Amino acid sequence: MTSIVSATHIANEAASIASRYIAAWDEPDAARRRALIAAAFTPEATYVDPMMSNAGHDGLDAMIGAVRQKFAGLRFKLHGKQDGHNDVVRFSWALAADGAEPVAIGTDIVVVAADGRISSVTGFLDAMNLPV
Amino acid sequence: MTSIVSATHIANEAASIASRYIAAWDEPDAARRRALIAAAFTPEATYVDPMMSNAGHDGLDAMIGAVRQKFAGLRFKLHGKQDGHNDVVRFSWALAADGAEPVAIGTDIVVVAADGRISSVTGFLDAMNLPV
Repeated sequence: MTSIVSATHIANEAASIASRYIAAWDEPDAARRRALIAAAFTPEATYVDPMMSNAGHDGLDAMIGAVRQKFAGLRFKLHGKQDGHNDVVRFSWALAADGAEPVAIGTDIVVVAADGRISSVTGFLDAMNLPV
Repeated sequence: MTSIVSATHIANEAASIASRYIAAWDEPDAARRRALIAAAFTPEATYVDPMMSNAGHDGLDAMIGAVRQKFAGLRFKLHGKQDGHNDVVRFSWALAADGAEPVAIGTDIVVVAADGRISSVTGFLDAMNLPV
């Protein structure tokens, strides 16, 4: 995660940037998750979606931990293709139990800093079919 | 376009913000297009997509004019649904001749300023099937 991401090859880096992001969301172990968050996000990184917002490694860690607790047993995974240009990457994700249909699908637009880490996330929901 | 867009009702404003944006792209008359650009974008607004970038009313006007010239005879229209939250709106567009299948479809993520005008555009291409 320390590679320099230039505007010209971010399209090629889109998949790995998205994978690092999803790995942090999908990590059940708290200490490992904290390390993945530090690897995926800049220290001042911001996050906003229709339901929540937060910033910084501590804030993102608390937010992701709370979401994981709420959806215990479900996994986050990449969904569809990733693309990118200049300093932005777009990818979609799905939240699902292993082997089951997703209960939510969303698309995130992230800005990538010079060190290859994400400096901001703007998230959108594409589909939501949560069990009551 | 002078209404104040708050975080709480931007979801309801998403369609009209997207419509003003598309109206500027789709206006064939240069003087009217310039006025629509001033109505849709803040004076310092930035634009970036995989193929081009520009900023400010003059820069956006020149860019949109050049794109229109390149794709003369085609129309820009909204495609699918629009959504938004906080100060961001997401919408898709299609470029097509009247009554024909689109030659390009894209998705734009825009940040909306307090005056309801767009302050930045980050564009992505979803499909491209341009005639040679």
